[in-house]
Amino acid sequence: MYGAGDVRIEDVPDPAIRDPADAIVRVVRAAICGSDLHPYRSMPVTEQGRPMGHEFLGIMEDTGAEVAGLKRGDLVLSPFTYADNTCFWCRRGLQTSCPHGGRYGFDGVDGGQGEAVRVPQATGTLVKLPVAADPALLPSLMTLTDVFCTGHHAAVTAQTGPGVSVAVVGDGAVGLCAVLAARRLGAEQIILLGRHTDRTDLGMEFGATDIVLAPGEEGAEEVRKLTGGHGVDAVLECVGSMQTLITSFGAVRDGGVISRVGVPSYTDGPIGIDMIMRNITLTGGVDPARHYIDGILPDVLEGRIEPGRVFDRTVGLDGVPDGYRAMAGRQSLKVLIAP
Amino acid sequence: MYGAGDVRIEDVPDPAIRDPADAIVRVVRAAICGSDLHPYRSMPVTEQGRPMGHEFLGIMEDTGAEVAGLKRGDLVLSPFTYADNTCFWCRRGLQTSCPHGGRYGFDGVDGGQGEAVRVPQATGTLVKLPVAADPALLPSLMTLTDVFCTGHHAAVTAQTGPGVSVAVVGDGAVGLCAVLAARRLGAEQIILLGRHTDRTDLGMEFGATDIVLAPGEEGAEEVRKLTGGHGVDAVLECVGSMQTLITSFGAVRDGGVISRVGVPSYTDGPIGIDMIMRNITLTGGVDPARHYIDGILPDVLEGRIEPGRVFDRTVGLDGVPDGYRAMAGRQSLKVLIAP
Repeated sequence: MYGAGDVRIEDVPDPAIRDPADAIVRVVRAAICGSDLHPYRSMPVTEQGRPMGHEFLGIMEDTGAEVAGLKRGDLVLSPFTYADNTCFWCRRGLQTSCPHGGRYGFDGVDGGQGEAVRVPQATGTLVKLPVAADPALLPSLMTLTDVFCTGHHAAVTAQTGPGVSVAVVGDGAVGLCAVLAARRLGAEQIILLGRHTDRTDLGMEFGATDIVLAPGEEGAEEVRKLTGGHGVDAVLECVGSMQTLITSFGAVRDGGVISRVGVPSYTDGPIGIDMIMRNITLTGGVDPARHYIDGILPDVLEGRIEPGRVFDRTVGLDGVPDGYRAMAGRQSLKVLIAP
Repeated sequence: MYGAGDVRIEDVPDPAIRDPADAIVRVVRAAICGSDLHPYRSMPVTEQGRPMGHEFLGIMEDTGAEVAGLKRGDLVLSPFTYADNTCFWCRRGLQTSCPHGGRYGFDGVDGGQGEAVRVPQATGTLVKLPVAADPALLPSLMTLTDVFCTGHHAAVTAQTGPGVSVAVVGDGAVGLCAVLAARRLGAEQIILLGRHTDRTDLGMEFGATDIVLAPGEEGAEEVRKLTGGHGVDAVLECVGSMQTLITSFGAVRDGGVISRVGVPSYTDGPIGIDMIMRNITLTGGVDPARHYIDGILPDVLEGRIEPGRVFDRTVGLDGVPDGYRAMAGRQSLKVLIAP
């Protein structure tokens, strides 16, 4: 990406092992993330461009001398950040804070939207998949790199479980995955606040019990009506705007939890006396996907959940610029890339 | 109180039962709360004045027809808000959100700083104490009306428990009670950030393992040094200023919890991308003391904790104006009133 709206497919040198902890992965599937749309809308023009993409799975092609447990030919998936998976933070399930970790597409590391990726900290980062690259299974496996785990992180940090009432704010791919994650964790009532019935229809299939299409305070009022006037136990805020945050405060019950997993478009928010008097908890954050993948993988492999249904378009590498356009223009919910 | 700095002792008509759910309690001990200092510093001048005080215990004097389980002569204590203790919110341990509840000193309800109080929703509100009014025990029992339960609420909502490292921000009575509460819940390391060694000395006796006297970012840096560079698992923010909130963000580790129980002096705070990238949780709020009293009471009655040590001055009713002055001027940590 060379600037807002300017995505180009280019030939670059093949990646090679630079560090003994590196591995080279040949990409089988990649994807465009909602968070890729932030630079797509606002990135300043640059000369050198920036490698894009942080969601991918593929075949092991080469390993550095220190890489353990992975060999050429393995099918592996990567969480959207790399990490050593052994440090103080990783041991606490917070791989996103690993001091040896980082983000794809930065600091000389490849993006996932390409033919191959040099993966730092490969032993700690990559998850070996115990299956072949079955095209029918790949979309759902792909969601474990980021989008489904992000919805799951929202649900987990909001203490979703049996008997809990949940409102999911946002009908993007993360919001729909949050619905599916809340259902998987046993939530009793799952109210999806969205704006597009084609998306909320998939939300119903993922387990939403109620759909609210009204925006803002009107939507929050509908959530309160659907919960006996009280509001929900947990709001999973999957957008990141000030409006959706305010809607979340309106939809949550006193003593409830708002979990945010969207990238916030604000720096300050309303955490004064009203939040204190209502005993509302604000939680969530960037999803440490590596922490969750092993636990969710069996449900995907055995077909109990099918989060890959959020992909409604598949493109080759040449189609990636169109994929960005389609997601930014809301013609597509989420784009899968088959290089 | 007739305005900032203007506290008067006046004769008023004896309270009487107005509602069948009311009780009349003859006050044996009351107290001045740190939150009483907010109006003491900023209340506009009024003609009619406002009854003050929300921390008291006393002897049952009269009961309305619907009051159950309490009789004339019982020693009872009241949490600092009244509540029916049967509704949706009270059943969830959130008596501060009870729609039939309210605050002492408002809406025609007496304050606790007087000779007698009409207590609405007496059955749900008052806790019968299984002891006589032993003067040695009364200070610690008094802390269950508010200040110790507030420190406990901070510790509980911050998930304090065995193995957890805690920083308590603020060496006022709430902060010191938060230290004691964190210790009672088994916290491994308890770092008290304060400004007055006479107060932090009591904090050490209450269980603080480390004292940090440096303010602001310097104090947060010391907390990080005391925790291997990581920051604490939980910050109990017992002041309510923007500076102490920022200190809390500096002292907490990634993935940690900040629990606020002070009255915030701000309306908006820094909850943007940094909080998201660090997975920090913001929780706490006004303490539903009624929810906690029964569980803590045995430890007070059997002397395992002595939170009443936060009282360093006792006055009669005539001494209440001096008590406010002493607390506002930091000559006194917390003032007990023996009418």
